Amino acid sequence: MQKSIIKLNSAIISAGSVVGKKEHEGPLGSLFDMHDEEDRFGQKTWERAEAEMQRLAANIALSKCDMNEKNIDAMFAGDLINQCTSSAYGLLEYEVPFFGLYGACSTAVEGLILASVMTSYGVYERCLSATSSHNCSAERQFRTPLEYGAQRAPTAQWTVTGAGAFIVENADSENASGKAKIIEAMPGISIEKGIRDAGNMGAAMAPAALNTLMRYFGESGKKPNDFDLIVTGDLGYEGNSILCELLRAEGIDPADKINDCGMMIFSRDTQDTHAGGSGCGCSATVLAAYLLPKLERGEIKDMLIMGTGALMSPDSIKQGLGIPGIAHLIRIKGAES
Amino acid sequence: MQKSIIKLNSAIISAGSVVGKKEHEGPLGSLFDMHDEEDRFGQKTWERAEAEMQRLAANIALSKCDMNEKNIDAMFAGDLINQCTSSAYGLLEYEVPFFGLYGACSTAVEGLILASVMTSYGVYERCLSATSSHNCSAERQFRTPLEYGAQRAPTAQWTVTGAGAFIVENADSENASGKAKIIEAMPGISIEKGIRDAGNMGAAMAPAALNTLMRYFGESGKKPNDFDLIVTGDLGYEGNSILCELLRAEGIDPADKINDCGMMIFSRDTQDTHAGGSGCGCSATVLAAYLLPKLERGEIKDMLIMGTGALMSPDSIKQGLGIPGIAHLIRIKGAES
Repeated sequence: MQKSIIKLNSAIISAGSVVGKKEHEGPLGSLFDMHDEEDRFGQKTWERAEAEMQRLAANIALSKCDMNEKNIDAMFAGDLINQCTSSAYGLLEYEVPFFGLYGACSTAVEGLILASVMTSYGVYERCLSATSSHNCSAERQFRTPLEYGAQRAPTAQWTVTGAGAFIVENADSENASGKAKIIEAMPGISIEKGIRDAGNMGAAMAPAALNTLMRYFGESGKKPNDFDLIVTGDLGYEGNSILCELLRAEGIDPADKINDCGMMIFSRDTQDTHAGGSGCGCSATVLAAYLLPKLERGEIKDMLIMGTGALMSPDSIKQGLGIPGIAHLIRIKGAES
Repeated sequence: MQKSIIKLNSAIISAGSVVGKKEHEGPLGSLFDMHDEEDRFGQKTWERAEAEMQRLAANIALSKCDMNEKNIDAMFAGDLINQCTSSAYGLLEYEVPFFGLYGACSTAVEGLILASVMTSYGVYERCLSATSSHNCSAERQFRTPLEYGAQRAPTAQWTVTGAGAFIVENADSENASGKAKIIEAMPGISIEKGIRDAGNMGAAMAPAALNTLMRYFGESGKKPNDFDLIVTGDLGYEGNSILCELLRAEGIDPADKINDCGMMIFSRDTQDTHAGGSGCGCSATVLAAYLLPKLERGEIKDMLIMGTGALMSPDSIKQGLGIPGIAHLIRIKGAES
């Protein structure tokens, strides 16, 4: 490879987050912009509910910065459902150029990388990046319909019902003042280490997270202690412990810097999700509702966030293939105080 | 929207195409780099065969310009299968940053737009864009397994078994001399006009193609006669006739400039595919094997190619939703003679 770290100069000027009942009951519950006690968002099917969440998150992000679809040059969006229909239908009403993405749970950061490139390099003035996941649509998509009452393994993660949307502009724009800045990106390489268990995605994704982090540390010369926080999209408890172990084996001390959105969004004591949260909506909503405000308040000055995705499908699992993992990284700087 | 047409300055320095038996028997058959009489490519499942096609197409594109994965900064890839696994598995062996895309049959052009942006604006030196589709994996993915012998409607298109890969660099690079140049892009807007029939994707995609073309003509001031060719990704015979009718209704004479990759790849006389070819592999292989050489020989001096996609899923069809269409456009200039 000729280049790895992409230098960026963009800002997240607005964000919207929409979640379900369980997420609202979690430790970050009060921070999300909107939730629905029934997880249905007024729709007849879980797939429609997920699409509606994405539409709502985009609407909220736009309204927060007093904008509408006419102010957006392009949208980057994806989700976990067959052929990314949550994004295709959720954002259908917006008459804005649409780039469909698929990176499993890494899609939120994949979208932010592309939106940030477009605005940093002057291709576009303003982009929207949106992702979603819904527990009920994802479970019947990847595993079994919830109605079957299948037993979940201790390593299984709980797909977050949530959608997050971000409005991205060039960091030199007026709207960027006081906002968090995306200054670097390290796109992920697919890594497959033989994990075949769709109930243990953390183990499948951890090696990809290690690969991206090691490439980033190697090229930048940085260490975990150089950052206030290094947060993975959703490795969950299982994947997070594997990542920390792998880092130590590489001679890198994760210190207390490494955390995971899937560990933040649910309470391990009062909400049994086994290995924690997952899904495109996990990192998107935690970043939008919890981390971004901290960055804007200057409580976080410099952080890395890695969207981690497990690139399997129901068919690839049935056909006995290993699960490739991928981890896209961006470096976000807080607002200068 | 602030901007629509993206100015680009990139070149397709190499391309690879891999197809199945039926495509090899078609009018363009002798032009494709590789084919397999069994459509299996040595694999046990159709999904694995599709992934292998994508790997082979990328290998061929790289070998044609005497390069390997180390020369590639990033890959943009997608396909039609659940969670884009043909790309995830097909390109897994390459240790190169991977951006997963989903645009149904528009993915080939979506990938070329992003690869072209990355190289035109100096983000990356060299990118690979790859897409694939396989008749046997797509039919059981979207409709019914071929073994069921379901009756196809006259408006149904035949998913092309094929994969195409493109290596993209900045147009000012040494390798770009004598190659086709991507000079503009007009990303597509999702349009849904109420077509609910997965057996008539041409009708679902034609309004999106019209939308992109009208926006392009409006902003550029160009007309069909300003180009040697305006080719759609795969509207097929049905969608093509609808697009031409819609253009005339808008006062635009398509003249004899408008053609379609799905109409080019199969012979209507000797190969009954009903409404023509479709699938990510259709526009990718026709561009790679047939149109690019014409551009490099200067036989085509200025053309528009629109990847047209139907953004439905098996579930969205079962749930009775309309099919959103999308059409991504790029303008390609032939090598100066």
